[in-house]
Amino acid sequence: MSTAPHASQRAARTGNDEFLLTPGPLTTSLTVKQAMLRDWGSRDKKFIALNARIRDKLVQIAGGGSDYTCVPVQGSGTFAIEATLGTLLPRDGRLLVLVNGAYGERMMKIAKYMGRSAIALSCAEDRTPDLTSLETLLAEDAAITHVAAVHCETTSGILNPIRKIADIVVKHGRGLIIDAMSAFGAIPLDVGEVTCDAVVASSNKCLEGVPGMGYAIIRRSVLEGCEGNAHSLALDLYDQWRGFEANAQWRFTPPTHVLAAFDQAVAEFEEEGGVAARNGRYSENRRTLVAGMREMGFETLLPDELQAPIIVTFHMPADPKFDFAAFYDKLAARGYVIYPGKLTVAPTFRIGCIGQLQKQDMEDALAVIRETVDEMGVKLGALAGT
Amino acid sequence: MSTAPHASQRAARTGNDEFLLTPGPLTTSLTVKQAMLRDWGSRDKKFIALNARIRDKLVQIAGGGSDYTCVPVQGSGTFAIEATLGTLLPRDGRLLVLVNGAYGERMMKIAKYMGRSAIALSCAEDRTPDLTSLETLLAEDAAITHVAAVHCETTSGILNPIRKIADIVVKHGRGLIIDAMSAFGAIPLDVGEVTCDAVVASSNKCLEGVPGMGYAIIRRSVLEGCEGNAHSLALDLYDQWRGFEANAQWRFTPPTHVLAAFDQAVAEFEEEGGVAARNGRYSENRRTLVAGMREMGFETLLPDELQAPIIVTFHMPADPKFDFAAFYDKLAARGYVIYPGKLTVAPTFRIGCIGQLQKQDMEDALAVIRETVDEMGVKLGALAGT
Repeated sequence: MSTAPHASQRAARTGNDEFLLTPGPLTTSLTVKQAMLRDWGSRDKKFIALNARIRDKLVQIAGGGSDYTCVPVQGSGTFAIEATLGTLLPRDGRLLVLVNGAYGERMMKIAKYMGRSAIALSCAEDRTPDLTSLETLLAEDAAITHVAAVHCETTSGILNPIRKIADIVVKHGRGLIIDAMSAFGAIPLDVGEVTCDAVVASSNKCLEGVPGMGYAIIRRSVLEGCEGNAHSLALDLYDQWRGFEANAQWRFTPPTHVLAAFDQAVAEFEEEGGVAARNGRYSENRRTLVAGMREMGFETLLPDELQAPIIVTFHMPADPKFDFAAFYDKLAARGYVIYPGKLTVAPTFRIGCIGQLQKQDMEDALAVIRETVDEMGVKLGALAGT
Repeated sequence: MSTAPHASQRAARTGNDEFLLTPGPLTTSLTVKQAMLRDWGSRDKKFIALNARIRDKLVQIAGGGSDYTCVPVQGSGTFAIEATLGTLLPRDGRLLVLVNGAYGERMMKIAKYMGRSAIALSCAEDRTPDLTSLETLLAEDAAITHVAAVHCETTSGILNPIRKIADIVVKHGRGLIIDAMSAFGAIPLDVGEVTCDAVVASSNKCLEGVPGMGYAIIRRSVLEGCEGNAHSLALDLYDQWRGFEANAQWRFTPPTHVLAAFDQAVAEFEEEGGVAARNGRYSENRRTLVAGMREMGFETLLPDELQAPIIVTFHMPADPKFDFAAFYDKLAARGYVIYPGKLTVAPTFRIGCIGQLQKQDMEDALAVIRETVDEMGVKLGALAGT
């Protein structure tokens, strides 16, 4: 087994001997992780200031201004999604979820748990939602109060037409909740242009922090009316917000080290040049990855115009010598962790473009993939299951 | 301003220039924090093994054997409490909560959010629950299915008689859920002797990890019957458990770095000598603290026999020169972070004994407190509000 090229340089930059080509948790910088090397009292003034800074900057990244506020919540992205849905939907509200992957499905499941009325407008995982059907549904079903949509569906890596969706929802006078988990900070989304009630994301995606918290950027005028909606104390973002307004503190123990890392991650994000710079770097990663994989004979699930620069889904090769588990293990042994597929429509695997990765890292990953495919004796060209 | 004695030794041991005399987040060892200096893929085999190891060891610490399983959950301790109550209580269950502080009250609030029937058996914050009333209530109210009790109420620092409570609950054939948040790992609790359905705690208390996850150690035979109880997808510990049983993975993104730190913290806990050793160290911290504070003229809220070796509540001195905010700031400036009071019965403040603290650290803290009191010109003796 040869070691991966430039492994020592990467280790110096990230502290890792393994490189995560995953949709998050992802590879973070060493300096982000080093921010966790001290303990914070959760009521300490400097820690309180750190939280205020993060909340302000997240609103700014969303283009929110004073009409919006950021409410962070402990846990993973799903916790933040459930908290936002549970807080913003009235008990007698009705949710329409645009589903083209696992994260849309998950919002339907959450609504069911909460006992809230919900319907799905579904399409295949390699298609974007049918906007004409969305129009019709909103026009015909007056009970629908809110629409939920996923900006980038990590299931396939597809970029959904969030601005067009928002325009339709606003035209029909409903509230829009955007799951921007794997897009926020890397794909432009300005709430001044994409009208919505809330944008939800988490610390461990394109802002390149570590996992342990999510957040929603919520329109203040909406949040003010949400008292009593939530089904859960821990996930009540109205109560969480009131807590921050009262004393700038978390109601319940915050993940202090995760927040210290996130504060550093957001500073590094700004230093890099914000959304434009991050979008540029990830887009170059994607182009490098896709071109190299195609050159070897792999094929992407999505046409380029639907592909977000976040994670790319590749069809499994038909050659029986391509055993995914072995492929995964061999890459991991060389220091590259890829991601299994999650599609129902076709056997696939995924490779992420996000985190502390640059063009050179993608080229190095491609070299290792090529070496591994050769070693396994896989003949590329034909696809599995087609 | 003089610096605190032995500050540089403490900094070498913990990486901190500040020392947290708080109930958690608390001071952790430098080696625990250094375990966060790498990124883990959440589906990585080594990470999966790390989680299995933590879960097994937590069951062992509770004396659980194969009848119990550990279900971790993202978020703070309150998330784990809500998840356990929501998962274990049937929708038509009825909860009796023993309340002598904020954490008992919080369980009542959670039940209300979840729309579950609940009653409180309350007493003053400086008293333990009335066991005769508990007997009577369980005998007379056949609808009560579960009892919830707090092992150590951080509000006052009181140690509740958990074994006697468990004996009564089991005698009446009800289920007991123990909030052992600030006691687990430092105050003996063996589920073989203290019969219960679940013990709940979090990563950032007496096992000396960093905050970001909680866990419940649950009787398997109980958990098996809990499908469909939960009010929340994120907080459904039945579904979380089924996920672990299926592929040993978290259903939703885990706080990978927090878990790596916790794995190291549990290893250091074992190395120190487990519950007995930690109880010994914290008890010595408490004795040192209480003796030194009394010598200065401070008075504890609780008599020694009710005081857990976790956090000690002190009455505010009556002298108007004792301004708590100034006292807090002066101690913080010297590197010691204490904790405000939370009592309704009397004006108080709190000082923790837990975390990476030893007798010498408590002696140093006492020296700094003495210096600060002198500097403020406070005359000790009389108590505020009495």
